Amino acid sequence: MDFAEIGRFFEEHDNYTILTHKSPDGDTLGAGFGLCAYLRDMGKKANVLNSDGFPERYSFLYRGYEPQEFEEKCVIAVDIADIALVGRNLWDYTAEGKVDLCIDHHISNRSYAKYSYVDGGASAACLILYDLFKELGRPISPQIALCLYTGIATDTGCFKYENTTPGAHMAAAELIGYDFGFAIINRMMFDIKSKGRLAAEHFVTKNMEFYCNERCAVIALTTEIMERCGIEPAEFEGLASIPLSVEGVDLGITIKQRHENVYKLSVRTTEKLDASAFCKQFGGGGHIRAAGCELTGTLDEVKSKVLAAVNALGLEND
Amino acid sequence: MDFAEIGRFFEEHDNYTILTHKSPDGDTLGAGFGLCAYLRDMGKKANVLNSDGFPERYSFLYRGYEPQEFEEKCVIAVDIADIALVGRNLWDYTAEGKVDLCIDHHISNRSYAKYSYVDGGASAACLILYDLFKELGRPISPQIALCLYTGIATDTGCFKYENTTPGAHMAAAELIGYDFGFAIINRMMFDIKSKGRLAAEHFVTKNMEFYCNERCAVIALTTEIMERCGIEPAEFEGLASIPLSVEGVDLGITIKQRHENVYKLSVRTTEKLDASAFCKQFGGGGHIRAAGCELTGTLDEVKSKVLAAVNALGLEND
Repeated sequence: MDFAEIGRFFEEHDNYTILTHKSPDGDTLGAGFGLCAYLRDMGKKANVLNSDGFPERYSFLYRGYEPQEFEEKCVIAVDIADIALVGRNLWDYTAEGKVDLCIDHHISNRSYAKYSYVDGGASAACLILYDLFKELGRPISPQIALCLYTGIATDTGCFKYENTTPGAHMAAAELIGYDFGFAIINRMMFDIKSKGRLAAEHFVTKNMEFYCNERCAVIALTTEIMERCGIEPAEFEGLASIPLSVEGVDLGITIKQRHENVYKLSVRTTEKLDASAFCKQFGGGGHIRAAGCELTGTLDEVKSKVLAAVNALGLEND
Repeated sequence: MDFAEIGRFFEEHDNYTILTHKSPDGDTLGAGFGLCAYLRDMGKKANVLNSDGFPERYSFLYRGYEPQEFEEKCVIAVDIADIALVGRNLWDYTAEGKVDLCIDHHISNRSYAKYSYVDGGASAACLILYDLFKELGRPISPQIALCLYTGIATDTGCFKYENTTPGAHMAAAELIGYDFGFAIINRMMFDIKSKGRLAAEHFVTKNMEFYCNERCAVIALTTEIMERCGIEPAEFEGLASIPLSVEGVDLGITIKQRHENVYKLSVRTTEKLDASAFCKQFGGGGHIRAAGCELTGTLDEVKSKVLAAVNALGLEND
C-alpha cells in the first residue's frame, strides 16, 4: 500500500482499534495516540490498546484521551514487527486475519497484516506517520505533533543514533514549531531520573560483567534485584544502553527477568556488530544496532546460552 | 556585519588567527577548525589557537590540521562572549582593538571586536557558520560538515535542549548527508565513558548536596577529588548536567576548582529559572538554561556565597 492508498483506507473504514506493542516505548505509543487523534480529527472512532496498559511515564502522550464506545470494525497495528509482540492481554489479535493494516519500520516485519506499509529505513514508526500525514495534507494538531516528535526522538536516542535520517531531522524541524514544549519532553525522556533510578544505574554499572577482552558488557537483572531497588519495572527501560556506554565495548547485553524462568534480552551494538543477527539465533529480531529476544531457563542457564553465542563471535581476536 | 559583508571580509583579508575560548568545548573548536578549513579552502592562511591546547577528546575535529607559518594580519574570535574568556596563555589578545571579527551566539556578548556578528538566538556558533557558508555558496568539505555538526550537536545536547531551533535540525539534516559518521561522533561525545568517568559520575552523584526542598542540587569538585579519580580534568566537562538530571531539581550547580582559591561555577536550570541572570550577580553570564561564572575563596567561602544567592531565589516556597 502506498500513502495515497492508506489515505483512502482511512476514509473508507471506521471504528478503529490501534494496537501497540507490549512493553510499550515512545514510538509505539506516539504512533498509536498520534494516529488515533488523527483518525478522530477525521471524524472517525478510534481507540488505542496496549497489553501492559499505558505507562505513567508516557502520560503526556495520552493527555485528554478517553476510550470511545463502538463496535470494532478495523484493526491497525503500529510499530509491531511480529504480531506475537502484541502481548498476552491482546492475544486474540494474533489470530490469522485479525489485523487489517500494519504500519511499521522494523526490517524484520513478518507481514502478518492484510495490508502493510513497512519501511525498514525509517527512523521510527512515527516518522512514517509524519510523512503519511504530510502527504495526505490534513493539518495536524500540536498534540499529534507532540506524539510524532516523541516517537522519532525516543527511537533515535534524540537524533544521536545511526538510524537518524535527514528526514528525521526535517520532520523534527517542522514538529518542534508546534510549540508543545519539546525540551521538556526530552528532559523527561532522556535526562530526569528519580533517586531510585540513579541507584539502579549505579547498581547495574557496578555489577556489570565484562567478557571477550572487555569488548562485551552484560547486565543481568532479576526480579529480586529490581524489587530491592524499590522501582517500578518501567523505570528499568532505558538501562539497555548502559553497557554500550563503557569505552571499548561493542556488544552490550541486558538480561532482564520477565517471569519465572523467562528472560528478555536487549542487545545493543556499535557499528562493528549486527544486533538483529545476534538475536535472530534466539528467535528474536529488531534493528541492526538495537534488537531483542526472549530466553527461558534459570538466569545461569540463560547466561551460559548467551555467552556461548558471544564467544562464537570471536570478538577478542579482532 | 551581515553575511555578505563577512564574505567580503574573508576575501579581503589573509593570515588569520582564529581564537577559541578557554576550557574548549565542541562548539568553539568545531567553529574554530571549521572556519579555519573554510578559509584555507579559499586559499587563505589560517591557524586556530586555544589557551589550554586542543583536548584529545576532540581530536577528530583537528585530524590532519597542521599550524601554518605566517605573519598574523587578522584575528577572528569564535564562540567567545567576553574576550577575557580567551584564557591566560592568549592574554595578549585581550588588548583593545586586537580582535577584528567576532562570530558568536551568546546573548551576553560584550562587543569587544571591531566587527561582530552575534545571534543570541542561534543554537551554536557553528550554526551561524553553517548559515554563513550556505549563503556564501562555496561548497564545504566533509571535514567542515563534521566540525559544524559537532558544534551544533554538543551545544544543544544532541538536539535535546530548548536552544534547539528548527534551523539547527535543518542544518543537521543536510550535514549528516556528508557521511562523516555522525553516530560515531555522537557516541564519543554523549555516550562513551571510561571506567574512570563512570567512577567520577558515581562519586559526584553520591555526594551531591540538596537544598531548598531538593529543588537545588550542588556538586562540589576540588582538585583533590579530581586527582583521586585519576582522570584528566577534561573528562569532568559534561558533569554539569548531572545535578539537573535528578527528578524535581530546577537548579543544578557544579562548583569546580580551577586553581588555588579559584572556582568555576556551571549553572544549569529548567524552564523555571534563568541561569544567565543567576551567574550575572557573580560577574558571569551565558545562556538562559546554561551559564557560568568564577568565584574566589576557599570552597567553604564559595559555597556559602552561592547558597546565599540560591536561598534568595525562594525556590522552596514555589
